[in-house]
Amino acid sequence: MAVFDELMQANARYAEGFDQGHLASPPKRRVAVLTCMDARLHPESFLGLAVGDAHMIRNAGGRASDDAIRSLVISQRLLGTNEIVVIHHTDCGMAHFTNEQLAAKIKAELGVDVGDRDFLPFTDLEQSVRDDLNILRSSPLIPADVTIVGAIYDVRSGRLTEVARV
Amino acid sequence: MAVFDELMQANARYAEGFDQGHLASPPKRRVAVLTCMDARLHPESFLGLAVGDAHMIRNAGGRASDDAIRSLVISQRLLGTNEIVVIHHTDCGMAHFTNEQLAAKIKAELGVDVGDRDFLPFTDLEQSVRDDLNILRSSPLIPADVTIVGAIYDVRSGRLTEVARV
Repeated sequence: MAVFDELMQANARYAEGFDQGHLASPPKRRVAVLTCMDARLHPESFLGLAVGDAHMIRNAGGRASDDAIRSLVISQRLLGTNEIVVIHHTDCGMAHFTNEQLAAKIKAELGVDVGDRDFLPFTDLEQSVRDDLNILRSSPLIPADVTIVGAIYDVRSGRLTEVARV
Repeated sequence: MAVFDELMQANARYAEGFDQGHLASPPKRRVAVLTCMDARLHPESFLGLAVGDAHMIRNAGGRASDDAIRSLVISQRLLGTNEIVVIHHTDCGMAHFTNEQLAAKIKAELGVDVGDRDFLPFTDLEQSVRDDLNILRSSPLIPADVTIVGAIYDVRSGRLTEVARV
């Protein structure tokens, strides 16, 4: 049995009590959050977001990848958001490997040579937030009037700390 | 005042009641979910996931982009997941534009020429799920013993429907 089958059972219970079917696509609070895929982060909960409030973009690290920028452009140009919140977190897996180590593991386990592919690991947590803020702020695809804030989430305390606004 | 300031206030309340600080990084239920950034989707809620259960990867459309595969490789090789659930949804913004239309809008509003950049829109919802399942299943970076399931979430009813397992 796949975990998915259990998720389907949980979803049936959720759907029974669901009463948010009237909401439209554009996020009510006009904000897009970019954060990590980490299982310990439930950003809608720790940010107090209701269904329909905010776009949620998540990848390994919460990095400002080209694909994250694709999502942000769609969020801003087509769905009206004008603020970005970037959230990285303590004890992130992205601080525990290098590209060379992961490439060697992939070669050993899957027999695939990924060359010098960048998996976007980092060594300094606060600097990783600042780096991503800079990538977003300097992107010609994100206009100057979009507010961009960076923060760190502590997986031990559940608490968010602001790093910078750019 | 940025929306972020309101999110910080909500977070302070969340942190006061937070009692999940003991959890480790690898997802307990060994599953990674790939879904859309849409504000109406709170996947942890509609899948019955607890803090620490599952990786959550989200982008515009829930597409199997190169960056989503980057995240999945890290999820599987470094953090032990072995199942992927791809979830697209009804009334998705990705079905309401073409690359040419978005490129023209970006040119008009930002003065940037994005050339033939693919923003990964789609026209057929069920086919978009199947396309992404096929991309993942045929990727040499995702081993054959990883279960991959595709589903559609209905934003009107809150209900999930399975599309395929590959």
